[in-house]
Amino acid sequence: MEKVDRMDKCNVLFLPHNKKVSVPVGENLIRAAMEAGVHVNASCGGEGVCGKCRVVIESGEVEGGVTSQLSGEDVEKGVRQACLSSVQGDLVVRIPIESEVDAGVLNMQSTPRRTARIKQMDFNDLKERGLFVPPVEKHFLTLPEPSAGDNQPDIERLIGFLRKEHDEHRLEVDLSVIRKVPHVLRAGDFKVTLTLARPVWEHGKTRIINVQPGDTSERNYAIAMDIGTTTIYGQLIDLISGQVLAEHGEFNGQISYGEDVISRMVYAEKPGGLDKLSEVVTATLNQVIGKIVKRAKVDPDELSTITLAGNTTMTQLWLKVDPRYIRRSPYVPASAVYPPLKASELGLAVGDHVAALVYPQISSYVGGDIVAGVMGSGMYMADALTLYMDIGTNAEIVIGNKDWLVCAACSAGPAFEGGGIKLGMRATKGAIEDFSIHPVTLEPMNITIGHVRPKGICGSGLITIVATLFEMGVLDNRGKFNRDLKTPRIREQEGIYEYVLAWAEESQIDRDVVLTEPDIDNLIRAKGAMYSGCQTLLEEVGLHMEDIDHIILAGGFGSYVDLEKAMIIGLLPETDPSKVTFIGNGSLMGARMSSLTNRIRRDVASVRQKMTNFELSETRSYMDHYVAALFLPHTDINLFPKLKGRLEARRALHSSSE
Amino acid sequence: MEKVDRMDKCNVLFLPHNKKVSVPVGENLIRAAMEAGVHVNASCGGEGVCGKCRVVIESGEVEGGVTSQLSGEDVEKGVRQACLSSVQGDLVVRIPIESEVDAGVLNMQSTPRRTARIKQMDFNDLKERGLFVPPVEKHFLTLPEPSAGDNQPDIERLIGFLRKEHDEHRLEVDLSVIRKVPHVLRAGDFKVTLTLARPVWEHGKTRIINVQPGDTSERNYAIAMDIGTTTIYGQLIDLISGQVLAEHGEFNGQISYGEDVISRMVYAEKPGGLDKLSEVVTATLNQVIGKIVKRAKVDPDELSTITLAGNTTMTQLWLKVDPRYIRRSPYVPASAVYPPLKASELGLAVGDHVAALVYPQISSYVGGDIVAGVMGSGMYMADALTLYMDIGTNAEIVIGNKDWLVCAACSAGPAFEGGGIKLGMRATKGAIEDFSIHPVTLEPMNITIGHVRPKGICGSGLITIVATLFEMGVLDNRGKFNRDLKTPRIREQEGIYEYVLAWAEESQIDRDVVLTEPDIDNLIRAKGAMYSGCQTLLEEVGLHMEDIDHIILAGGFGSYVDLEKAMIIGLLPETDPSKVTFIGNGSLMGARMSSLTNRIRRDVASVRQKMTNFELSETRSYMDHYVAALFLPHTDINLFPKLKGRLEARRALHSSSE
Repeated sequence: MEKVDRMDKCNVLFLPHNKKVSVPVGENLIRAAMEAGVHVNASCGGEGVCGKCRVVIESGEVEGGVTSQLSGEDVEKGVRQACLSSVQGDLVVRIPIESEVDAGVLNMQSTPRRTARIKQMDFNDLKERGLFVPPVEKHFLTLPEPSAGDNQPDIERLIGFLRKEHDEHRLEVDLSVIRKVPHVLRAGDFKVTLTLARPVWEHGKTRIINVQPGDTSERNYAIAMDIGTTTIYGQLIDLISGQVLAEHGEFNGQISYGEDVISRMVYAEKPGGLDKLSEVVTATLNQVIGKIVKRAKVDPDELSTITLAGNTTMTQLWLKVDPRYIRRSPYVPASAVYPPLKASELGLAVGDHVAALVYPQISSYVGGDIVAGVMGSGMYMADALTLYMDIGTNAEIVIGNKDWLVCAACSAGPAFEGGGIKLGMRATKGAIEDFSIHPVTLEPMNITIGHVRPKGICGSGLITIVATLFEMGVLDNRGKFNRDLKTPRIREQEGIYEYVLAWAEESQIDRDVVLTEPDIDNLIRAKGAMYSGCQTLLEEVGLHMEDIDHIILAGGFGSYVDLEKAMIIGLLPETDPSKVTFIGNGSLMGARMSSLTNRIRRDVASVRQKMTNFELSETRSYMDHYVAALFLPHTDINLFPKLKGRLEARRALHSSSE
Repeated sequence: MEKVDRMDKCNVLFLPHNKKVSVPVGENLIRAAMEAGVHVNASCGGEGVCGKCRVVIESGEVEGGVTSQLSGEDVEKGVRQACLSSVQGDLVVRIPIESEVDAGVLNMQSTPRRTARIKQMDFNDLKERGLFVPPVEKHFLTLPEPSAGDNQPDIERLIGFLRKEHDEHRLEVDLSVIRKVPHVLRAGDFKVTLTLARPVWEHGKTRIINVQPGDTSERNYAIAMDIGTTTIYGQLIDLISGQVLAEHGEFNGQISYGEDVISRMVYAEKPGGLDKLSEVVTATLNQVIGKIVKRAKVDPDELSTITLAGNTTMTQLWLKVDPRYIRRSPYVPASAVYPPLKASELGLAVGDHVAALVYPQISSYVGGDIVAGVMGSGMYMADALTLYMDIGTNAEIVIGNKDWLVCAACSAGPAFEGGGIKLGMRATKGAIEDFSIHPVTLEPMNITIGHVRPKGICGSGLITIVATLFEMGVLDNRGKFNRDLKTPRIREQEGIYEYVLAWAEESQIDRDVVLTEPDIDNLIRAKGAMYSGCQTLLEEVGLHMEDIDHIILAGGFGSYVDLEKAMIIGLLPETDPSKVTFIGNGSLMGARMSSLTNRIRRDVASVRQKMTNFELSETRSYMDHYVAALFLPHTDINLFPKLKGRLEARRALHSSSE
């Protein structure tokens, strides 16, 4: 692992394809092949069980890859199992061509793997863009000691000194500071550090939120949190360097009460349900806080601010605001905006002085997590027309730029997170996340998370598999398998067609890992919902898909998505992949950016008011767009001209080779 | 009692003195005599036991006064015991002159009783003076119901409507309102009443603090509280009429932990002491709140605001702010100002939406109760140079007008509340509260609270007794008894001279009720502390006692103080009694006024900054003034010219009669 961290790059040349790829030291060789668009049969996900991924190392060095399935002679000749080999330097690797059939693969490559460029806004960005307005500052003061002739109250001593020596005005003080001040002043011999929380708006007051003995002015920290339906993430941020010192995620304790927001809301309506859900999510928040505080070795008294973003339901449940009317037509949340709250009063295990800032909501299904993403990604300041997509069970899209923003929630369903898919699973160990297919034998190349035998398919894997099957002609544009193909991997089971990704003996489960037509239908509905959502929003503002200059993907999922594949299935509009960036957890990033600067805290108010929400179900044209999008990639293939060209070229090649 | 309430007045003419007095129907006849300055021997306090107060009703009618001590013949002749008779109409009453000695009384009257004019600021005052700026208002709204085309969040619906229909801007909302809003809007069919808390300062925001179904706009209440060291008072105020609907007082539960602020502070330093003291005073506050809410039959949800004033120690103890440095030199309180606090978070049994406003402090011993008195009395707006005195264990004085204010705490000691006095007691049943003396026989006329046999002496009684004894030459200006007077009532007991107010058999206690020279010393020290405090403050601003235009007395005690007597002992500067007003509980009045108008809430900030505190112990001239004031009325009798004249006249009369 250490070698990977060094990020030294090695060149790997695959023969006879003559494809070169640059990968970090330590990269798995079968992943390198996938990256290069080189197909290697491999069913077992990378655990070395199927023994199909034999390659010859013609020059250079790999680590591993020698198994009992190889003879001594094989090893001597440089044969290795690719899935168990890691790249140690520049390599030349030959994929054995054992038949005429194999040769077919050479000219029928799948599109090369392209993931989105990762773009995270940081402290330096803020400073460069002139957006850095520290929300919390510390001042070390050496105060005059009280005497018979100067026995003003402690707080007035502090304020007077700040006014005179630091030109600070319009100050107010929290009760928690008043409670601490008599002891702290004397414990510190009247040398103390004050924490000042700056007003978001100029006409506001600066609040003195903490007083500590001695000089602690170099220790000032913030926490940013994303309250996700599934996972809660937290980051501990050094407010002086702007660096993230620790990060941690835990499953939201509410999961035991329902997987999705709807089932949580149903539970919340039971007697005591809302209190219970608030309590368990608070417990998870505290677990995360405890972990990151410990990991960063920070004194909790030196935390100055906490910012939280979550979707509308998560926010209301945490704050014990009944979400009953979120899930009932006409879908009304309680509030868009929450006032600054005392974190400790909400049960967060931080000091009395810490205010909790909660990201505002737009509508019942476009929540604070999306607003945070729009803020954190900088989309709200962009000149370019930007499409922001948060892909997950609760999929949301935002379109716009610095002048206007429209948004909608898409009922994508859980397919992107493996839900509603026969062998769907979350992106954890054993999930097939990458895939290619031999165009003639239709044998698969499965890569799983953790390089273990497959257990199922995660969201990004699903997209890649369906896109690849479609591109290779195994699926038609309705998502149905080509009934004419002769392979045991495509079969009908109890009236349902499916493709066998891995046989039972190569899998971790006692049965075949398959992808069924109903699975594909679910994916098509999910991507259709998102694509048609974009089309509908664009139409409402008089624009078209081709007007989009920049796509921002958010969500844990997005970093693994093969962009070309996502365009092939019609999840993303067809565009230059370099125009797509991935920001990771946009909600967390927005919360972090708000922790670092009041400028974003201020701008969020106008962004919220600017973001026009559309209820797609109430928008006339949506259903038409949706039905048209229930194809691979779309009824109107002209929306995907490059793919159209590739499909035509491939069809021509195919008919000529027949 | 009903008759007293009607306040019909009767004229009572006392013969042979030929003194007339106007008293309400039902007034006790011996009190009427006292009011007229007519001495009637009466030792038993008004219970009819001593039988000395025989009078003849020459015309008109009294109720009662017939006892077994009177013969049938007596009764027939109109003889009654004055202390048991109540006035029922115009009367002519003859005091029997049974000896030459008795005649002496006719020409040697004590000064007539004069108590301060009661002056309480009220709602109409505020309106007349243009000071009425309601701090909390209710609005009844009929909102449009949400629909598919208009599903904005509930709070945004409220705010949008307020903005559009009521021209309300700059609004913010409490979490408690967000929590209530989904249910309340729907329970009220979108007809709801909002409670708006107005900003104290113009640049502040209006906070929506409550939402209720239906129209409750005619029900809007406030609570004002005085957190006294001994007693906690509360008033329930109708914010629409400005009327006090209920009032109640309870002993501060902290009394079990110490009588005065010092002993409470000592207790607070014990482990858990501060929390305990906060808990018990909170319990008392809640008892008072419970009583007044019940008595006024008000729904607690309709309370909108609570304002509390207390001295610095009481405020810190309640808010759990360690008062350790209040009682240690250089006497530093934690804070002058407290931010607006959530009442429910401080343990007050009121709705989540209610903010608690706590009056600011000036110094360790000039607290929020005094600031409240300065505000509530309107002193801070006065043109006239005003002396504000809060007389009690913690005696405070403020001098100034609309332009400037100086203040100080006087270590008066507890004499005014009966403390440090051998038979001192609080002003409760059995306390001698009024007194006169027969100038020749030196027999007393005692009137007790409740007209029962005497148990002891309360503060106002003490002043009257000492002043009367001094005026009649029984005491000299050092407060020592004239050793030459021949009466069993003046005696030496174990080296200490004393005057017997009531013999054991006339008292409620098994011994004589006496006033000792050490008692008188204590009173002189107490009044000397206050008078010299005034002198010192005046000197600091270059003024003199005679510059004072108006005296305001505050404190439970002040309403009973005989002003002429207070001037005789030198507690008050000699002035026209019509220049003295009594405001009762100034702290409570200030809290009430702040409940009624934001103008006073705003002005309090500048008043606090304007009030210059002097630590008398640190002020050079104070000790000289104090020593000079340890006489009756003062070393410098020229400060009391009227008294000087009377004493000289009396001395002349005395020597001529000898």
